[in-house]
Amino acid sequence: MRKLEDLQGVISKAVDKLNFPVHPDKLYEPISYILSIGGKRMRPALLLMACDLFGGDIDEALSPALAIEVFHNFTLMHDDIMDNAPLRRGRVTVHERWNQNVAILSGDVMLIEGYKLMMKVPDHLLRQILDIFNKTAVGVCEGQQIDMDFEVRSDVAIDEYIEMIRLKTAVVLGGALKIGALIGGADNKDADLLCSFGENLGIAFQLQDDILDVYGDPEKFGKQVGGDIISNKKTYLLIKALELATGETAELLAHIIANKDFINEDKVKAVTAIYNSLDIRQQAEREMQAYADKAFAALDAINLPEEHKQYLRDFADGLMVREN
Amino acid sequence: MRKLEDLQGVISKAVDKLNFPVHPDKLYEPISYILSIGGKRMRPALLLMACDLFGGDIDEALSPALAIEVFHNFTLMHDDIMDNAPLRRGRVTVHERWNQNVAILSGDVMLIEGYKLMMKVPDHLLRQILDIFNKTAVGVCEGQQIDMDFEVRSDVAIDEYIEMIRLKTAVVLGGALKIGALIGGADNKDADLLCSFGENLGIAFQLQDDILDVYGDPEKFGKQVGGDIISNKKTYLLIKALELATGETAELLAHIIANKDFINEDKVKAVTAIYNSLDIRQQAEREMQAYADKAFAALDAINLPEEHKQYLRDFADGLMVREN
Repeated sequence: MRKLEDLQGVISKAVDKLNFPVHPDKLYEPISYILSIGGKRMRPALLLMACDLFGGDIDEALSPALAIEVFHNFTLMHDDIMDNAPLRRGRVTVHERWNQNVAILSGDVMLIEGYKLMMKVPDHLLRQILDIFNKTAVGVCEGQQIDMDFEVRSDVAIDEYIEMIRLKTAVVLGGALKIGALIGGADNKDADLLCSFGENLGIAFQLQDDILDVYGDPEKFGKQVGGDIISNKKTYLLIKALELATGETAELLAHIIANKDFINEDKVKAVTAIYNSLDIRQQAEREMQAYADKAFAALDAINLPEEHKQYLRDFADGLMVREN
Repeated sequence: MRKLEDLQGVISKAVDKLNFPVHPDKLYEPISYILSIGGKRMRPALLLMACDLFGGDIDEALSPALAIEVFHNFTLMHDDIMDNAPLRRGRVTVHERWNQNVAILSGDVMLIEGYKLMMKVPDHLLRQILDIFNKTAVGVCEGQQIDMDFEVRSDVAIDEYIEMIRLKTAVVLGGALKIGALIGGADNKDADLLCSFGENLGIAFQLQDDILDVYGDPEKFGKQVGGDIISNKKTYLLIKALELATGETAELLAHIIANKDFINEDKVKAVTAIYNSLDIRQQAEREMQAYADKAFAALDAINLPEEHKQYLRDFADGLMVREN
């Protein structure tokens, strides 16, 4: 089995070698630019890993893996417009560096380039892989819209939230693993199980992210602690707290959310105190564990040598214990 | 041979029956909305016509035809954002009725839905048809970017302009005809010839549009005469005039373009007078005829019964003599 870091390295080199036309430059330069900003290349590396797990040749999975990375960066380019984000990983976003129209149109052509790369698979897999890619792509768009809808809603339920993070972040992981597995020679049943592993692990990972925002070690987490609280982001924690709080606690929480004059530090402290009083962290961790368990159950059922499964377990464990 | 109007009717009915998910409504309602605004359904009807010409079953071409229409409307949704257009065919645009983020994301999912519909073709044609679709889609994006680049350039050359309109409007016509022909059973040679017919006819049609903006009968043309002149749009006529004008005429033209205080009617009269003095209309008509001739030459070479070719000639003649 290839190490995940090695596969990430393979992707990084291949991304650098991606050639887009020169003209018109405002259409293609932003693509090279956003791809050069980097990131961990986790999604495409997982696609290669899945291929490798089933004994496939990772060279044959390289174009589809790049398709996943190009697609992911298309979503970032458009999301950055929608979020009005000035920076992405410390670099100026495309709509800021060029303009919004450039970011819309470059993103559009990236989605098409994603399809072109995804089509570089054997004929007998073409339709099935494109079906998976379509489903993944639609899911991400639906998740993004539902997430934007949440911003102006105060009655989001936990199951709606889970469905949103499943669509917005987990289906791509599942889809990437499934495509890689099929290219590697997995049968449909095993490919579906690996997809389920990825999707459930993705949900668990996002829940962990919600928990770490509040309870993480800032040095290890690498983000401002309480960022979600400051921006009133509807995470699992906030939704659960809104659901469980009653009486004075509910009034206080509503007051904190509505009041724009709080000093950030005070707001984080006050909301965290409410979370603590309602045992929100424990419930979030239980939910996270439930999805991690589902992921491991799917993994157990896959028809793969035990050492390959152990590789996946180690990978999942590595993802899930960034903190404790 | 089915009449083109009948095929347009088939498309309109099928568009009305297209089913998109209900949730999230902000993602899918704009798709039904923009599709309901209508239009002539010319592109998908041409795809069906091409299938019919080669003796194919138009039912088998219906999904790809819908794909072309959904794709076309995706480009309209995003173009309307970029152009900041308040209205489309007299109806409020998506980004105005909802908001810009909705129009970006709905457009994105429309492009994916276009691929889903385009995939409903027999396995043996899947890769070839998707390759054509990819090329068409990339071309449209490139054409749109080049068109936006032209807005801030004063040195656009005629051959660049022709390439822009080829990409922005003609490749879709060629692509639609080629896909329809292949589904209808045409061989690659005939499909390519029909594609060339459509592309060249599309360029001729766009040049005619440029001419009619200035010299058309306003009642027949259905648009404000001189609209392109008023907005300084870089049409064939303006580019040619900028190329040919010298001395005082060049100075006058530059002055008119730069001056924002002109009364529209005066501006149209003055620029038209310059066009007349430089014989611009005649040159535009010669160029238009050259592309129409190329289209007819491609048509002549296609291996089809004479009556089928005559049908295509009549169709092209109908497109090209809206005026005289």
